[in-house]
Amino acid sequence: MSLEGNVLIGQSGGPTSVINGSLYSIITEAKKYGFIGDIYGAIHGIEGVLNKQLIDLRCESDEIIKGLTRTPGAALGGCRHKVQDSDLETIFKVFDSVNIKYFFYIGGNDSMDTADRLNKAAVEQGYELCVIGVPKTIDNDLPLTHHCPGFGSCAKYVATSVREAGIHTASMYTSEPVTILQTVGRNTGWLPGASALAKSGGDDAPHLIYFPENPFDMDKFLEEVERTYKRIGGAFIVVGEGLKSASGDYIQVQSDDVATDAFGHPMLGGVSEFLRNAIESNLKIKARNVKLDICQQAAMHFASRRDVNDAMAVGKAGVLAAVEGLSGFMVTLLAEEAQTGLAELARVANVEREVPREWINEEGNFVTTDFLDYARPLIQGEVKTHIENGLPVYVKLRKEFIEL
Amino acid sequence: MSLEGNVLIGQSGGPTSVINGSLYSIITEAKKYGFIGDIYGAIHGIEGVLNKQLIDLRCESDEIIKGLTRTPGAALGGCRHKVQDSDLETIFKVFDSVNIKYFFYIGGNDSMDTADRLNKAAVEQGYELCVIGVPKTIDNDLPLTHHCPGFGSCAKYVATSVREAGIHTASMYTSEPVTILQTVGRNTGWLPGASALAKSGGDDAPHLIYFPENPFDMDKFLEEVERTYKRIGGAFIVVGEGLKSASGDYIQVQSDDVATDAFGHPMLGGVSEFLRNAIESNLKIKARNVKLDICQQAAMHFASRRDVNDAMAVGKAGVLAAVEGLSGFMVTLLAEEAQTGLAELARVANVEREVPREWINEEGNFVTTDFLDYARPLIQGEVKTHIENGLPVYVKLRKEFIEL
Repeated sequence: MSLEGNVLIGQSGGPTSVINGSLYSIITEAKKYGFIGDIYGAIHGIEGVLNKQLIDLRCESDEIIKGLTRTPGAALGGCRHKVQDSDLETIFKVFDSVNIKYFFYIGGNDSMDTADRLNKAAVEQGYELCVIGVPKTIDNDLPLTHHCPGFGSCAKYVATSVREAGIHTASMYTSEPVTILQTVGRNTGWLPGASALAKSGGDDAPHLIYFPENPFDMDKFLEEVERTYKRIGGAFIVVGEGLKSASGDYIQVQSDDVATDAFGHPMLGGVSEFLRNAIESNLKIKARNVKLDICQQAAMHFASRRDVNDAMAVGKAGVLAAVEGLSGFMVTLLAEEAQTGLAELARVANVEREVPREWINEEGNFVTTDFLDYARPLIQGEVKTHIENGLPVYVKLRKEFIEL
Repeated sequence: MSLEGNVLIGQSGGPTSVINGSLYSIITEAKKYGFIGDIYGAIHGIEGVLNKQLIDLRCESDEIIKGLTRTPGAALGGCRHKVQDSDLETIFKVFDSVNIKYFFYIGGNDSMDTADRLNKAAVEQGYELCVIGVPKTIDNDLPLTHHCPGFGSCAKYVATSVREAGIHTASMYTSEPVTILQTVGRNTGWLPGASALAKSGGDDAPHLIYFPENPFDMDKFLEEVERTYKRIGGAFIVVGEGLKSASGDYIQVQSDDVATDAFGHPMLGGVSEFLRNAIESNLKIKARNVKLDICQQAAMHFASRRDVNDAMAVGKAGVLAAVEGLSGFMVTLLAEEAQTGLAELARVANVEREVPREWINEEGNFVTTDFLDYARPLIQGEVKTHIENGLPVYVKLRKEFIEL
């Protein structure tokens, strides 16, 4: 098999603060190999292939490419398109027309499914293609990797927000004693769990954490909130957006009303608003709710240096695997900073890794020391922000589209 | 009138990121005067006086006092207690028992009402008391001051969040095209307006801003969102929490259901959740909503240096006024950094300053250049954060309670 050919990179799923760090290192590493020709970017992931929207990344200045390492969002655009069998013909026609030899897909569970399908389809068709999945997800729910790029920065921002809002709430216990903060993270509790890093001791926030892995019991919840309130005069509660009842219904609304995305995943909304109302009406205690939503995935102004380094490491490792002719793998992260391995895409796609039950306390309302020891290294270090006029400044790609 | 006596400081209303900067400078400045004896802090503002919960601030270490300048929340505790005539006897009994000669109340509109009442009651009773109001409010709605300490840091955090979440949203226009971010700020639009600082040009977020000062028109709103969506493929919308319809009802829920605080102000909840549903059901476009809530008032990790300096300046100026024997004034801020004036408490109490109509564009959905020129200087500069284990570290008062 010849190594000569062009590179195509796509970003998929929701962005993280550091997803562009992986893009940066794929571009930078790929440029080192003489047998690699053009380096293209697909606008909005696989949608950009289907819509023939590819840009020439060699046209971007070094300054912009370097700036990607400190810029949130997905510089190429993300997507939630689920590849259908009927898409494959168009995709390979486009690949063939611009001689794509290397395809890097930066994404989470669903994106690894897309990468896996393209890899298998290429083998079936005899199209020479190296497909490498580059992990990213603030959900931290990809299997076979110690952790996921994007999680550390999100965890750092969530823990910082909980520490700050916790101090604020404690100063207002006599009038507004309860705060419920809702994290993202879908069906797993890695992010609500990481909020426990905010607690430096004693009665610091957070006091109660609820995990989507455990069936949510409203009576138990209200009892625990009331007990905390009576003991210390208030409560700071963190909940994952994907809390479900024992019967499997999402907590916030009737399950019939939950909108779904293209992958059939529910679009999760207002569990914190729902629980705030439950506390106010049942316990007659004033409560506030916080829904940071996408600010969690985008808070590059206080991102984790460790996370940025890991995001760059997986991009680089992806290129190293591809130029060895490997295909059908996702890069994984080891426990040590910027150390990587590989896992077969087929074993990764569509699998969700939950928080181990033994890392959640017996009552199901806080994490154990093991969880904290796991998460703490991932939030270390800060990123140097470029500030102009009091605000962080981010870069944009120039986006030179190619003729197709 | 003798200048000898003790100092009492209270913090009132909701905290800001920088309210402890004012506390710091009152303590530090007061310590310079030999005729000032003890320096006490009231726990939870005037509630601490009524409940005889005063602490001795001279017992706190220099390190803790200095650390207040970078610590969010209200170190003494805030409150929302509205002083009743029946409270006055207890208050002055406590003041007299510990020889309070100087009373500094750090707060917003309602707290200035409390300070004004205490000042008038002292005059009536012939109790020698210097009452000085020290402004703080992220709402930025106090009259007779160019701006309010607390606003700049909140504005900086909101603008940063909108810039980051705006970049994130734009990368997801093809699947999740609309985001609505709800700011705090009650009935005035200073904070939603400040989000416009995030826009560095072109089609950057935010695209539409809605101000509580203008009656909210749902048809106009939906038409403007749809127009923006059709033009650029998505929309980033910022709304003030206190949007009201032309008939004066809060937008989120039936006005009968709105809970109120002790001052009769509504506890504002979920306008962004309400509008998200309105967009999804009327325009059939997927939308997200962000409710940063108290994280806005507590985000010391990215506070404005200018704001911290202003917060310290009003505290110091308050002491300077008091030791000249002045009473019944609130310190004001001038346009230049850390420059102060004075305004009579009676003219400040319970007055809300709105965004001038001419600083909002004709369509009522964005700010003018005049607004930006006003707000931009207030978000300049950053605060050096102490970081341990990847998170900002804040201080707590030791709280040595005095016998009463």
